[in-house]
Amino acid sequence: MKNQILKYLSKYTAITKELEHAVNESAYFKTYKKGTILLKEGDFSNECYFILEGCIRSYFLKNGEEKTIEFYTEEQAVTPANYGKSAPSKYYLECIEDTVVNVGNPTLEQEMYQKYPQLESLSRVIGEVILTTQQENFTVFKTSSPEERYINLLKNRPDLLQRVPQHQIASYLGIKAESLSRIRKRIINNLIS
Amino acid sequence: MKNQILKYLSKYTAITKELEHAVNESAYFKTYKKGTILLKEGDFSNECYFILEGCIRSYFLKNGEEKTIEFYTEEQAVTPANYGKSAPSKYYLECIEDTVVNVGNPTLEQEMYQKYPQLESLSRVIGEVILTTQQENFTVFKTSSPEERYINLLKNRPDLLQRVPQHQIASYLGIKAESLSRIRKRIINNLIS
Repeated sequence: MKNQILKYLSKYTAITKELEHAVNESAYFKTYKKGTILLKEGDFSNECYFILEGCIRSYFLKNGEEKTIEFYTEEQAVTPANYGKSAPSKYYLECIEDTVVNVGNPTLEQEMYQKYPQLESLSRVIGEVILTTQQENFTVFKTSSPEERYINLLKNRPDLLQRVPQHQIASYLGIKAESLSRIRKRIINNLIS
Repeated sequence: MKNQILKYLSKYTAITKELEHAVNESAYFKTYKKGTILLKEGDFSNECYFILEGCIRSYFLKNGEEKTIEFYTEEQAVTPANYGKSAPSKYYLECIEDTVVNVGNPTLEQEMYQKYPQLESLSRVIGEVILTTQQENFTVFKTSSPEERYINLLKNRPDLLQRVPQHQIASYLGIKAESLSRIRKRIINNLIS
């Protein structure tokens, strides 16, 4: 599993001995059963995750209804908005599959940055990549019709459609479950005819 | 203007002599007239900006129509998605007011990080704050009705409503100009009655 982390990091930087040490020293793996709630509304958050296997969903409650924010899968980092802060979470994090993660915490993170400055530099670079992707997703979302959003998901994250219940996909796309059914039927009909 | 930058940075860290030196050494101010296009679709991007005064709008063209992505104002950083990469921009950046910025470029940035490691650490921290804000905005957007989106803007960035033409606000909210007019009228009527 450490190799999996190094493979991921190697996309962004050359893997030095220093970096290998850092990963060896800070790696801390945990396995959660499907259905585990990692964070609840109102909780403080002292953990961030890097997913090695599985799927974590973030959502919040609006008028008692679950609104799905994001699905995180293999090789994605999950850092709660209130991670390391003395503020309660507005969101839930739920493992929607059996999930294996590498767990980080603010104290360990600071220690590692002190000891391995290369790690902090890498963290900045990866943070910028995530921010850019996120901006891009937001832009595409804002300027797409529900049907276009579904097609984008089909193109960019086809695995999600196999892994996630349809009502959660609908919520993630900001549409009603019935609208999603209609869209899917229309697309299938277009493919057939 | 250097003081304005230090004041901003002081929200995130203690201002050391080292940091003052870094800002003094890297500060490079530019003034642009309203209407200046800083980046065009297809351009490479070798500049990022920190706004000291004014407003920059990012947008892209979809079927010939301008779709507003974001408005950046005082104390906000504007880093194009393709900044420092050999990839063409999908977006435009336009000064919609006379605008004063501090300009950065990838070479200078790397030099500064080498020379002042504290600056890289700070950059990571600020990047995380921006990412969290962005995630929050995306979530709120996705789960709000057009009217709720307008009310949020009214609460969180009331200055924009004074500074920006209404059709750009509508595009930013992902709604048609006529819908925005209707929403505004409804809100005003509710306030009066």
